[in-house]
Amino acid sequence: MTSRVFNFSPGPSMLPESVIHQIHAELLDYQGSGMSIMEVSHRGESFMEIVASSKNLLRQLLNIPDDYHILFMTGGAQMQCAAVPLNLLGEASCSVAYLDTGIWSRKAAKEAEKYAKVSIVATTEHTPSGLGLPSPDDFHLKGDEAYLHYVDNETIDGLEFTQPPFIPDLPLVADMSSNILSKPIDIERFALIYACAQKNLGISGITLVIVREDFLGRAHSLTPSLLNYTLMKESDSLYNTPPTFPWYVAWRVLEWIAQRGGVQAMNGMAKRRSQKLYTYIDHSNFYHNPVAIEARSRMNVPFTIQTAGWDKAFLAQAEQVGLSHLKGHRLSGGMRASLYNAMPEAGVDALMAFMQSFKDQVG
Amino acid sequence: MTSRVFNFSPGPSMLPESVIHQIHAELLDYQGSGMSIMEVSHRGESFMEIVASSKNLLRQLLNIPDDYHILFMTGGAQMQCAAVPLNLLGEASCSVAYLDTGIWSRKAAKEAEKYAKVSIVATTEHTPSGLGLPSPDDFHLKGDEAYLHYVDNETIDGLEFTQPPFIPDLPLVADMSSNILSKPIDIERFALIYACAQKNLGISGITLVIVREDFLGRAHSLTPSLLNYTLMKESDSLYNTPPTFPWYVAWRVLEWIAQRGGVQAMNGMAKRRSQKLYTYIDHSNFYHNPVAIEARSRMNVPFTIQTAGWDKAFLAQAEQVGLSHLKGHRLSGGMRASLYNAMPEAGVDALMAFMQSFKDQVG
Repeated sequence: MTSRVFNFSPGPSMLPESVIHQIHAELLDYQGSGMSIMEVSHRGESFMEIVASSKNLLRQLLNIPDDYHILFMTGGAQMQCAAVPLNLLGEASCSVAYLDTGIWSRKAAKEAEKYAKVSIVATTEHTPSGLGLPSPDDFHLKGDEAYLHYVDNETIDGLEFTQPPFIPDLPLVADMSSNILSKPIDIERFALIYACAQKNLGISGITLVIVREDFLGRAHSLTPSLLNYTLMKESDSLYNTPPTFPWYVAWRVLEWIAQRGGVQAMNGMAKRRSQKLYTYIDHSNFYHNPVAIEARSRMNVPFTIQTAGWDKAFLAQAEQVGLSHLKGHRLSGGMRASLYNAMPEAGVDALMAFMQSFKDQVG
Repeated sequence: MTSRVFNFSPGPSMLPESVIHQIHAELLDYQGSGMSIMEVSHRGESFMEIVASSKNLLRQLLNIPDDYHILFMTGGAQMQCAAVPLNLLGEASCSVAYLDTGIWSRKAAKEAEKYAKVSIVATTEHTPSGLGLPSPDDFHLKGDEAYLHYVDNETIDGLEFTQPPFIPDLPLVADMSSNILSKPIDIERFALIYACAQKNLGISGITLVIVREDFLGRAHSLTPSLLNYTLMKESDSLYNTPPTFPWYVAWRVLEWIAQRGGVQAMNGMAKRRSQKLYTYIDHSNFYHNPVAIEARSRMNVPFTIQTAGWDKAFLAQAEQVGLSHLKGHRLSGGMRASLYNAMPEAGVDALMAFMQSFKDQVG
C-alpha cells in the first residue's frame, strides 16, 4: 500500500484518517445487519438512527436554535444558488443584495438573476495591506432588498469573513461550503446557511441547509419538490431516497468533530495551521500571499513564488514527496494549500519543510 | 461477522457481493494514490477515467446511439419529474400525456402539473387474468401532447412493460429507475430515459439521464443550472462537484454487468429468477400475485398470503433466516420480493424454500 499523502485539494478533500478506517472496518457488514451500509434502506431503523443522530450532532455542535430547521439536500452548493431565491422570494418580483468577494459569490449572483433583480452591493478591495473584504458600512443598499447573500469563505482567492456582514432587518444568507464546522457561528444572525459536504462534512453528494422557520412556506410555484425547503422539512429530508452513503459519511465526520472537542477545537486547530503557514510565507522572501491579514482564510491559503517560472517544478516535486493537489485554481494560478478540519498539523509542517527546501534549492 | 443476508428491498438494494469486496479492497488507497476514492478530486485523472469509462460502458451495454447524451445528475428520479418538463417544454403552455400505472406514475404526473397541462391518457386495468397494463391502442390522446411519460416498471404493484408504449411522432419519456440495465432497450424509441441508481446501478445519490440531442436547448428560463440538461451535457456532467462516490460505485457496477455478459445476460437471469418465483406462487394454493402474467415485473414480485393474518409471522420468520426487507409497500400491504440484477438465484431458492416451510407450518 502506498503511504498516505497530505491532500491539499480544495474539495473533494481529505477525510479524517480514523473516519476512513471506521468506514472501511464496517463496510462489509453494517452493525451486524448482514449487509453493507451502502445497501441499507433509507426507511430502515439503522438509517433512521443516522438521520436523527446527524441532526442532533449538528444542532449541538453549531448550537442551532429550535426555530431553525436542518435539511439534507442534493446538488451541491450551486443547486442552492437557485433554491435560495426559489424558496425565499416566491412569485414576487424582488430585489436581492449579493456581495461579490470572489468566484463563488459571482456564480451565486448569476444564478439568482433568473429569479430576482440582483444588486452587487460590495466587492473585494485592494487596500495598502492587500486584498480585503468590504465592511457592512460600505454596502450600497437601497433598502428594498429581500435578503443579503454572501460567501463566508472564498476558496480561490483565500478570503474569509471573521464576522458575518450582518445588517439589521436584512435577512442574511450565507454559503459556508468551505468553512462550516470549522468555527462557532452565531446562527441567529442568519436567515439561512447552506454548505456542500465535501470540505468539512465528508464527501460530495449531500448538502446541508439550515433555515429559520419563518422563511419556509414562500416557495415559487415552479420550485421542484426536491428543492422545496418546506417539503424537505416536512419529510425530515426523506421526501425521496436521499444520498444514503454521503449522509452516513457526514454523520461519522460529525461524530469525529464532536469527539475532538467540537467547533471551538476545530477553530483553534484551523487558526494554528493557517497562521503557521501565513507566518512562514510572509517571512520567506520567496513566497507571497496577496490577502490583507484580517481577511485571510483559515481554510485556503493561496500563494505564489516571487520569482516567475518555478510553479511547475514546485508542484511536481511536492507531489513526489506526498504533498498533493497544491496547484492553484486555473483562474488565479500559483499554488493553494487547502487546510480543512481533516488536515493534520503534520501536513502543514511537511509543506513548510518542503517549501523551505525548494527555496533553498532554487531561491 | 454476520453472514450476508438476501436483501429483497426495493431500493436502496443489494449490490453484487464482488463489487462490495472490490470497493472494500481499494477503499484505503485508490490505485496507489495514497488517498481514498472518497477523497479524490472530481477534476483529477483518476476520476476522469471513471467519468469516461462509465459513459463508455453505458453506451456499449445499452447500445446508445451517438445522438443521445448520457448525463449523471442528482436528486433521484423524483427530481427528474420536475427536470423533464422544465427542460422539454420551455416557456410554452403545453399539454403532456402521462400513463398512470402506479404510484410512481402518479407522482411524476403530479410534479409535472406545475409546468404543464397534464392528461392521464391511460391507467392499469383489472382484466379477467389480473391487473394489466394499457395498450397504446387504448390511450386517450388529443394529438397536441408534447410528450408521453410512463414508468417502465412499477415497483409497488409489480407491473412491467415488455415493450415500450411507443406512439409514432409522440416523444416518449421513460422512468426506468427500477429496471434499467436489466434488459436490452431500443433507445431510438425514446426521447429521454431517466433512472435513479439505487436498484440496478449502485447506490443512491446519482441519477442517470439519457436524452436525445434535439431535446436539448429548450429549458424554461427558471430551470436551476444543475437541472439544465444542456449545461450538464456541455460540462460532461461536471458543472459542479458531482457525487463522486456514488458515481464510482455505479462505474464498478457497470463493469460487473459487462463482465457477466451485459444486459442480455441480466435479462436472462431476471426472467429465470422471477419466473421461478411466480410459478411457485401460482401453484402454491397459499400465496397469491394479482398481476396478469403478461404484465408481471421481473424486478418486483408482490404477493399476499391467501389466509389473512399471517403476514407479520411470515416477515418475522423470514428475517430470522436471513431473508430481509420482504415487507410490501405500506400502501399495498402484503409482501414483496425485489429481485434486481444483484440478487443471486440462490436468494430466490432460499425464499421459495422458506415460503414452502412457512406454508407447511401454517397452511
